Amino acid sequence: MAPSRSPELDPQRPYCSIERALIVLTDRWAFLVMREALLYDVERFADFRERLDIATNILTNRLDRLVQAGVLERTEYREPGSRTRPAYRPTPAGRDLTVVLGALQQWGDEHVPREDGPTMTRREQGSAAPLRVDFVRDDGPSVPLDRVEFARV
Amino acid sequence: MAPSRSPELDPQRPYCSIERALIVLTDRWAFLVMREALLYDVERFADFRERLDIATNILTNRLDRLVQAGVLERTEYREPGSRTRPAYRPTPAGRDLTVVLGALQQWGDEHVPREDGPTMTRREQGSAAPLRVDFVRDDGPSVPLDRVEFARV
Repeated sequence: MAPSRSPELDPQRPYCSIERALIVLTDRWAFLVMREALLYDVERFADFRERLDIATNILTNRLDRLVQAGVLERTEYREPGSRTRPAYRPTPAGRDLTVVLGALQQWGDEHVPREDGPTMTRREQGSAAPLRVDFVRDDGPSVPLDRVEFARV
Repeated sequence: MAPSRSPELDPQRPYCSIERALIVLTDRWAFLVMREALLYDVERFADFRERLDIATNILTNRLDRLVQAGVLERTEYREPGSRTRPAYRPTPAGRDLTVVLGALQQWGDEHVPREDGPTMTRREQGSAAPLRVDFVRDDGPSVPLDRVEFARV
């Protein structure tokens, strides 16, 4: 293995796509905001804040960055008698992060298990059969994301 | 969607396996150290340091934590006329993180692309056919990790 400097390191435009992905998923909060949006369909600021117990300024910052990065889009909703408020929904690019979250979830369940076992499973809509995240041949069968659901055990 | 507090939040023992995985992959440096170990077979402290251009104390800290977390193991090597030095190799649990890194790489190439296209592809050993990371049925075909290789484009 050559000890030369890794060509992936360019703070302006990382050569490595793993690093480029980590510029979007900057930290634990970014992962957890996307988890709430993708796995639990959370959309409203107040719901993200309450469920994640996250400081308002940090949540504002992470949502703004995820919108800028193109993985969430900001929309609006209004309840009767209230003012308009922002809501956040995954874009198609954001939806594709489901594979990353599914891979982390699977790894955590296998290698940092809870005594009581997994709390969620991945399965195909309308089926009880479990799914896993894995390497497959490009021309091989896989389950499209819109058929993947996360279910409480 | 219930706005109740997300049951995943327990700082002692996160309910959610995504969070438990992120306690191992604490930050960008932890991901990048595992990238060097898994994709480039980097083993030696000096090689990690030089390739990542990372401060010695940060690298020491991340390697120690990854060893403690059980994803790297510390071994030793000695070159003729030199003292024994530590080397770091992925454990089986560490190897399984290849799925997470492959998913991040694939996402970065698709959604945060470079003008010149991807710098690496995932393929099956002895084959030029590309692989992808995806959801598959638990009983469906996939490519075992020891057959997956990352190749420069």
